[in-house]
Amino acid sequence: MRPVIYFDNAASTEPLDEVLRVYTRAAKEIYGNPSSLHGYGVAAENEIKGAASSIAELLGVSPDELVFTSGGTESNNQAISGAASRARKSANFVTTAAEHPSVSECFAALKKNNLTVKVVETGADGRVDPVRLLEAVDGDTALVSVVHINNETGAVNQIREIGAAIKRADKNILFHVDGVQSFGKYRVDLYGSGVDLFSFSAHKIHGLKGVGCLFVKNGTRLSPLLYGGGQQRELRPGTENAAGITAFAEASRVAYRDMDKNFKIAASVRDVLLKITGRDGAAVNGDLKNGSPYILNMSFAGHKGEIILNALSGEGIYVSTGSACNGRRGKQNALVKMGVTAERAESAVRFSFSRFNTIGEAAECVGALDKILDRF
Amino acid sequence: MRPVIYFDNAASTEPLDEVLRVYTRAAKEIYGNPSSLHGYGVAAENEIKGAASSIAELLGVSPDELVFTSGGTESNNQAISGAASRARKSANFVTTAAEHPSVSECFAALKKNNLTVKVVETGADGRVDPVRLLEAVDGDTALVSVVHINNETGAVNQIREIGAAIKRADKNILFHVDGVQSFGKYRVDLYGSGVDLFSFSAHKIHGLKGVGCLFVKNGTRLSPLLYGGGQQRELRPGTENAAGITAFAEASRVAYRDMDKNFKIAASVRDVLLKITGRDGAAVNGDLKNGSPYILNMSFAGHKGEIILNALSGEGIYVSTGSACNGRRGKQNALVKMGVTAERAESAVRFSFSRFNTIGEAAECVGALDKILDRF
Repeated sequence: MRPVIYFDNAASTEPLDEVLRVYTRAAKEIYGNPSSLHGYGVAAENEIKGAASSIAELLGVSPDELVFTSGGTESNNQAISGAASRARKSANFVTTAAEHPSVSECFAALKKNNLTVKVVETGADGRVDPVRLLEAVDGDTALVSVVHINNETGAVNQIREIGAAIKRADKNILFHVDGVQSFGKYRVDLYGSGVDLFSFSAHKIHGLKGVGCLFVKNGTRLSPLLYGGGQQRELRPGTENAAGITAFAEASRVAYRDMDKNFKIAASVRDVLLKITGRDGAAVNGDLKNGSPYILNMSFAGHKGEIILNALSGEGIYVSTGSACNGRRGKQNALVKMGVTAERAESAVRFSFSRFNTIGEAAECVGALDKILDRF
Repeated sequence: MRPVIYFDNAASTEPLDEVLRVYTRAAKEIYGNPSSLHGYGVAAENEIKGAASSIAELLGVSPDELVFTSGGTESNNQAISGAASRARKSANFVTTAAEHPSVSECFAALKKNNLTVKVVETGADGRVDPVRLLEAVDGDTALVSVVHINNETGAVNQIREIGAAIKRADKNILFHVDGVQSFGKYRVDLYGSGVDLFSFSAHKIHGLKGVGCLFVKNGTRLSPLLYGGGQQRELRPGTENAAGITAFAEASRVAYRDMDKNFKIAASVRDVLLKITGRDGAAVNGDLKNGSPYILNMSFAGHKGEIILNALSGEGIYVSTGSACNGRRGKQNALVKMGVTAERAESAVRFSFSRFNTIGEAAECVGALDKILDRF
């Protein structure tokens, strides 16, 4: 069988061999409960502390500002629900129309509990305009939540400008950034961007599934989502997955070390794929200038995205329509919200890249698309 | 260095080699997002379905009644908070005085939100009397939550009798059982015991940390704790940790296969350790007849448990005081609640066993304790 061409890295990535090596060593050797007082417990606790220090150093923050979670979904929910529980009843929350479901559905649930949520539309490039966003902010705003890089379109929001504007308006407003698609791919200056809460995940950067993190800036008041044994400074109880956390630190270290190289790989792969543009109405959704090279969203006019996906699958090329997280529901949230017609949104395909992709694979994909579009 | 004698298996266990093998194979080969529509996504989804079927068969339930979580703490919180969100405002909740913090602290948080929680005292053997428990149940009771095996004392509650009594009183009352210390060690008949919700965890049975499960009987109405991409029938969003779940199924399979053998190992190890009884006031807490052989709780009159723990640590023998989950807080919840004096509770040490322990280790531990008690 021909090797698969995997262009669905925004959904999940292949774990690095060194990440798995670190994991299996730790899982086997450091299996004590980090809360236990004996040597194995202390070793596990030290492992977690080391991992937190290492990730904190990459982000330029303090290790005690990191809380490990079960993934990006929990991090986003913890940030938003945790802040909402502490907010006054009259408080409002501001977010954008192009958020991941773990943000938008969390807000939808809070809205059902009579919380005021203001949703700001995104522009034709898929980004939220900082000025429009700030118009929604007022003296009662408790938290603003903005995705750094949209998982469907790759649109990169201007986190620094948004953060500065929020803090100028009122420095008590919390700024939450969903960084799941940016961590390890873009350098983020959390302190310099006024970010109070930053969600990220291991399995999007060649780490393991089931491990995520939430940066909680010192002084930020959050209620926990879970109650229990008081782990992680009472914010996130449950026996910590020390091995998974250590493997997350390893994946982060490698991602930061190879950040520029990987970025160039993604950009070069994307550039080759762009050769299909114009062929039979194939067109980019969004604005490449303000998009991450890791994500390319294209529509194939007149063809349903799912048909293209299945045809490519038949050629051993794995892509997605929309995002994995709403693929099964057929929602094209981010695209429709940026003004793309429903028909065009339905014909959208997402190609998302990683360090393991090559321009040869991109060329093969262009050839396969050519053949597929000919056939239709 | 002498090999460590690990008697803290109620806190966490060493993963089996075959569990790690299954995990690493799956993590490397089946890294697609289970929600993705291509071959890798389908493979990951099938992996999860296979794991659910396999665990469901062991429990004698339906695979679609299992929801995978990040661990026992999340399972307990999901069961209790998820039921509380659906309950009428006038509803009350019944639990026991000897629950794990992920149950008792979850109820404490709900109580702060003006929910009525009735806490039933346990007897001198650490178990809750089904008759006393039922006295607390009335027409407004929404849920009863009882731990199957207490993590500090090993006391085994009469789940079947309790379940039958609850359902006789009112079949609409939900029955939640925290089975973290019993799953894979005791056969549980969930349908036959009237259990609607059953929490369990992988790392207590030689599986991996960060993976748990909640049995949710068909027809049980629960609100989710997290919101997002709609995974796991809308009850638990977030990219599923397919490899961890598969490894959980493997750990469960081996635990059930070797259940009787492992039970005998634990009992024989405990029996050797019991030889220390009477030596310098050493006495068992609880009632061995109604206790799990996997957990032995003893007090060493006149000596703080932590001192004994540290002295044993010095001999390479790892035990705990209370449970790992409240070890750092110095709480001796279950013991004090069963009528043990505060002084005696402070001198308590928990020895907890697994398939990897031997009677030779137990004999060595008795020798070490002899030496330590002599020294003091």
